[in-house]
Amino acid sequence: MNQPTDIDLRSFRDALGTFTTGVTIVTTRDAAGSDIGLTANSFNSVSLDPPLVLWSLAKSSLSLQAFVEAKYFAVHILAADQQPLSDLFAKRGADKFAGLAPRRGHGDVPLLDGCAARFECETAFRYDGGDHEIFVGKVITFEHFNRPPLAFLGGKYAVALQKPAGARPDSAEVPGSVSHDSLHYLIAHAHYLLEQKFRPLMVAHRLNQAQVYALSLLGTSSPQPRVQLDATMAFTSHQLGPTDIPALIKRGYLRDVGDDCYELTDAGRELLIESAAAIKATEEEAQAGLDFNETQILRHLLKRLVRDMYKSQKD
Amino acid sequence: MNQPTDIDLRSFRDALGTFTTGVTIVTTRDAAGSDIGLTANSFNSVSLDPPLVLWSLAKSSLSLQAFVEAKYFAVHILAADQQPLSDLFAKRGADKFAGLAPRRGHGDVPLLDGCAARFECETAFRYDGGDHEIFVGKVITFEHFNRPPLAFLGGKYAVALQKPAGARPDSAEVPGSVSHDSLHYLIAHAHYLLEQKFRPLMVAHRLNQAQVYALSLLGTSSPQPRVQLDATMAFTSHQLGPTDIPALIKRGYLRDVGDDCYELTDAGRELLIESAAAIKATEEEAQAGLDFNETQILRHLLKRLVRDMYKSQKD
Repeated sequence: MNQPTDIDLRSFRDALGTFTTGVTIVTTRDAAGSDIGLTANSFNSVSLDPPLVLWSLAKSSLSLQAFVEAKYFAVHILAADQQPLSDLFAKRGADKFAGLAPRRGHGDVPLLDGCAARFECETAFRYDGGDHEIFVGKVITFEHFNRPPLAFLGGKYAVALQKPAGARPDSAEVPGSVSHDSLHYLIAHAHYLLEQKFRPLMVAHRLNQAQVYALSLLGTSSPQPRVQLDATMAFTSHQLGPTDIPALIKRGYLRDVGDDCYELTDAGRELLIESAAAIKATEEEAQAGLDFNETQILRHLLKRLVRDMYKSQKD
Repeated sequence: MNQPTDIDLRSFRDALGTFTTGVTIVTTRDAAGSDIGLTANSFNSVSLDPPLVLWSLAKSSLSLQAFVEAKYFAVHILAADQQPLSDLFAKRGADKFAGLAPRRGHGDVPLLDGCAARFECETAFRYDGGDHEIFVGKVITFEHFNRPPLAFLGGKYAVALQKPAGARPDSAEVPGSVSHDSLHYLIAHAHYLLEQKFRPLMVAHRLNQAQVYALSLLGTSSPQPRVQLDATMAFTSHQLGPTDIPALIKRGYLRDVGDDCYELTDAGRELLIESAAAIKATEEEAQAGLDFNETQILRHLLKRLVRDMYKSQKD
């Protein structure tokens, strides 16, 4: 428990940071006609009738006077791909509008593009908020652009994804039946679908899965000893049979360089490039429905999953 | 553009909804000694020195008077798994504290457990916010519980995940070599690792992959005609050979029920239960390093990936 007298600022910030927020840039124009803007995550909606929103600004901010004097300001709810813009406007004293050529809203306030939503406001109230000033704006016009928004959590940029509607209870009630919600089912499913365009190639070249892995491992480092190929592909459950390597050599994909070491031929390299293209095409189709952030997060989580499984193997 | 005179409330709400928020429950105790609480996402931090937070409450709320009169209130930032509690406290007039036996904070305000962070506040200011009243509280004590928080976006519950720090550029430069950052590589890798505990079982029972799929499909619906089994497993690239079904029957896992239809025996069902346990054990190990939000997001993104791949197949 932290008592009133000894509130530790770092702990307080950390606790506040558990509240997820979006990220906004608030802009205005000062009395001298200069554009002013800063990144703020202290935004929130207040009232529907009249339409009011609020945000707060440190009293120590260089921009305080401009916002106190301005009649109008604009709040931009940033889109997921606007992190660089957020960083730029979070800097103190940077030339933030250089090269942006913003359009003008009410009171000639600069308007930024590419955001998720924008609210043009007239200052309705200013309230005391300790070391911050609370600005309540009456929304006079707004736009909504249907872009996924940027989020902020625990002092870092974040991605928020809506929970799937009414996460249905798992339908797999029969003992031993496969839950279509299970990680294994989803990952196995995704794996097979990702190889759809590649599979006809395997069939055309009469390659079995172990041969595909051997070629693919040699694609990264060639030549390699057979024993190393075996060791690396062990986790896939596929293993090279006695006829696999000879068949690859006979078809001209591999060359025996002695000491049970094998090297890719040009034909082998070409086959790998063709395979990689087929897989990449399916990957791109698969990712078309995910935005940039979602793809990043998916890869990040899969990496951690794989890493953790290796860890628990070693334990 | 929406002009001031014709702000459409639905569009306004939608535009505001692009700002991601956390979800809180704010509690107090009314003059009669009754516990009061409601769900709010209009929370935000305001000031560090003095430590101030704010939230706003509809003037039409049945709880307004209690909060206006109370000297203290508590804000609970909800954890990702507290959606049911959020739903309960969002209901008008529900008996929200029944069975909760809350502990007591300053002013005997009820304190809820299981949240991500909690702030006990003394009302510092109340401000006019149109159809809402803005409450600014001075934080007198707080706790931070290191639980992943619940988020809210676009009118729906959401999960927010911090972006991975500094996504490194892909190291795979050799043409035809496999990028260890590619979705295919990661998913194939995860798939094999997830089946590690299951694979010895397959070997012990002399099952090939096609037989495993046939049993698994029958686990969900039994009996099934052979033609349906073939059709369902087509996307996996594995297919039943001429000896696969007879071998399963011979080993007592399946029974022929005529018309080329097959049914699981008790032994087949037991084998499936054993397999499911092996896979579940690996899944649990794999997910041990992911928190509630991360697991949900991973599954959600994989589902969309799979769905989008089916869609692009049809196009």
